[in-house]
Amino acid sequence: MRDVYVIGVGITSFSRLEYPLVEIAAYPSVVAMKDAGITKVDHLFVANMGSARANHQTGLASALIDHLSLTPAGAETIENGPASGASAIKCGYLGIASGLYDTVMVTGAERMREADNLEATDIVASLSHPFAEAIYGITLPGLAGMFTRLYMQKYGVTSRHLGMVAVKNHENAMLNPFAHLHERITLEGILDSSDANTNNPLVADPLRFYDLCPVSDGGASLILASAEVAKKLGKPLIKLAGMGQSTDTHCVHEREDPTDLLAVRRAAEQAYKMAQIKASDVNVAELHDAFTILEIAESEEVGFFKKGEGHLALEQGLTKLDGKIPINPSGGLKAKGHPVGATGVGQAHEIVLQLRGDAGKRQVPNAKIGLTCNFGGFGNNVVCLIFKREE
Amino acid sequence: MRDVYVIGVGITSFSRLEYPLVEIAAYPSVVAMKDAGITKVDHLFVANMGSARANHQTGLASALIDHLSLTPAGAETIENGPASGASAIKCGYLGIASGLYDTVMVTGAERMREADNLEATDIVASLSHPFAEAIYGITLPGLAGMFTRLYMQKYGVTSRHLGMVAVKNHENAMLNPFAHLHERITLEGILDSSDANTNNPLVADPLRFYDLCPVSDGGASLILASAEVAKKLGKPLIKLAGMGQSTDTHCVHEREDPTDLLAVRRAAEQAYKMAQIKASDVNVAELHDAFTILEIAESEEVGFFKKGEGHLALEQGLTKLDGKIPINPSGGLKAKGHPVGATGVGQAHEIVLQLRGDAGKRQVPNAKIGLTCNFGGFGNNVVCLIFKREE
Repeated sequence: MRDVYVIGVGITSFSRLEYPLVEIAAYPSVVAMKDAGITKVDHLFVANMGSARANHQTGLASALIDHLSLTPAGAETIENGPASGASAIKCGYLGIASGLYDTVMVTGAERMREADNLEATDIVASLSHPFAEAIYGITLPGLAGMFTRLYMQKYGVTSRHLGMVAVKNHENAMLNPFAHLHERITLEGILDSSDANTNNPLVADPLRFYDLCPVSDGGASLILASAEVAKKLGKPLIKLAGMGQSTDTHCVHEREDPTDLLAVRRAAEQAYKMAQIKASDVNVAELHDAFTILEIAESEEVGFFKKGEGHLALEQGLTKLDGKIPINPSGGLKAKGHPVGATGVGQAHEIVLQLRGDAGKRQVPNAKIGLTCNFGGFGNNVVCLIFKREE
Repeated sequence: MRDVYVIGVGITSFSRLEYPLVEIAAYPSVVAMKDAGITKVDHLFVANMGSARANHQTGLASALIDHLSLTPAGAETIENGPASGASAIKCGYLGIASGLYDTVMVTGAERMREADNLEATDIVASLSHPFAEAIYGITLPGLAGMFTRLYMQKYGVTSRHLGMVAVKNHENAMLNPFAHLHERITLEGILDSSDANTNNPLVADPLRFYDLCPVSDGGASLILASAEVAKKLGKPLIKLAGMGQSTDTHCVHEREDPTDLLAVRRAAEQAYKMAQIKASDVNVAELHDAFTILEIAESEEVGFFKKGEGHLALEQGLTKLDGKIPINPSGGLKAKGHPVGATGVGQAHEIVLQLRGDAGKRQVPNAKIGLTCNFGGFGNNVVCLIFKREE
């Protein structure tokens, strides 16, 4: 397999964007090409989940390739629910590693807020099992609520720990100009109001408003290239050094222990093996905190902390920007936002900035190796990526 | 790049199928695994376009991998409109050619008829440009009607020629037990009724009912593998020898000459180059005849006949089962059916049967090289594949 490098990145604000979906996809694509210093690519993979329903549009990849005047390059849309972004990066990797392409653009985009809130929730719920989950009215927040309750019972996680994830990630997002939520929150502020029906109401017991990511629009783009192309550019070399992917039972209730995120563990192990590193070599990570509990659980499953001890590490501040292993310096899905198809590409965007030393006020010092964990379904299809800065 | 072989194929009837989408996808997948003699795969790519709207389901790849008990293998859905199938095969190729996977299942499935007719037409229309085409009410049959009119004016194609495509493909479908339409039609029968509002009414002038493919449900599956895996099986070796893909302007009206299907021409040229053959080496082809005119136009653009002479070749019977270059022995989209995401995989399924000599009564004698043309949007994203039987 040929080595694969990231030679360009681009992103939009994650927020409510009043532009057509194809524009939301085009902007970061152009930024990424400019960043790479190239004007064409051999292929395009688009990551998107909801356009058929939220935007009444299919064939988005064909629309984008034309909008960017990059025809006759080929293009496809990759869908793997909330992990569509990392899956599209993986497909881009395959294109270059195989030798068929020398440059591939991977653009994730979603305009979920063109749908109303109920429709958006329903689009995401369509990821669950049609006859064993969705038909009973379960939503992703509903699954996350039950998962959180089990985690609390088994490992002693409390609402206070969940709040710590939110506070940390909101704090990080204050330093990220592209983040959806620029709102500093305090543990006292969100916990004090937890019993009243004020600004932190219950959504899916025990999850409250500040435990959930926002519904965001947004786009993010990476340009991948062969070593030959990348080495000509004279910029820091960021290698896509490891990838792992694992599926798990479609239904959450079929798992022997639902608190066990097997797919995350397997995906991370594969990625470490491919990159020839161990978890302790990672300097910075973007984990998929669509719900606060997921950051804690994933920080254990990817091997940063022992199972059941992620919340203790959090208490000790180990995952803060100046901690031992900073998690979600971008603000994470929780505060940077979660435009579904763009999320995994946005995670990679943040890691590339960190490894380049271009992350501004949220820069993790001396970051050389970064990991992303993009979580599809409720943990039924997970993709982990490892990026390495080469000297 | 490593060589890639097809080691197993499976298909459902293309028709109206009263099963959940995941079952429609699972059946041909199991048949293909059985055909290959394997019980697991390294990865799954699913081709589907309409599930989010027609079936209220996303994350179909995660659902299928679990349904088949193939976890923890990774899985993604590939969407490229009506060319999703060939695009998914291309992604499977990349996976094996790169060396990351040794076996990949590619399953296309669509259950379009869970939606009503208007919704199905609208889902397909969502492929067109949102602001320059769809907003004006254009549908794919509408675009095809205008394209046909231009083709008639420029090249002397008549309704009689269109009818010949339908008659030939219905005839072929009579020999295909999995075809949607088992209805023998005659040129006289459909032309006699063309002026009355009887059984062949106008749909989009000059296209009449028998010029359009049906709306079908269905699934098809291929198992791709490395040479090492394929050569152990002791079966006829069918190599995926060439691939080509090209995009064109998203809007049909932006093309300098809308009768010129540039993307088809470029995709075919790339595929021939990669397979190191020329058009005249092809023994059998499955072309994307969603509308009768497309079989004629594509037969020219892929290089079987000179531009503007496809209808003359048709008159001479050159594209019949016993002709010089048999086109759509399966019945084509016109009569075999068009379950959108499954179509491109179904085309490949037919070519593999032909090259193996397993096509029964519709067998093309001595077929060694076969081509598929899978046409996305209205020609804005086209994928051509070439399969070769190795001795």
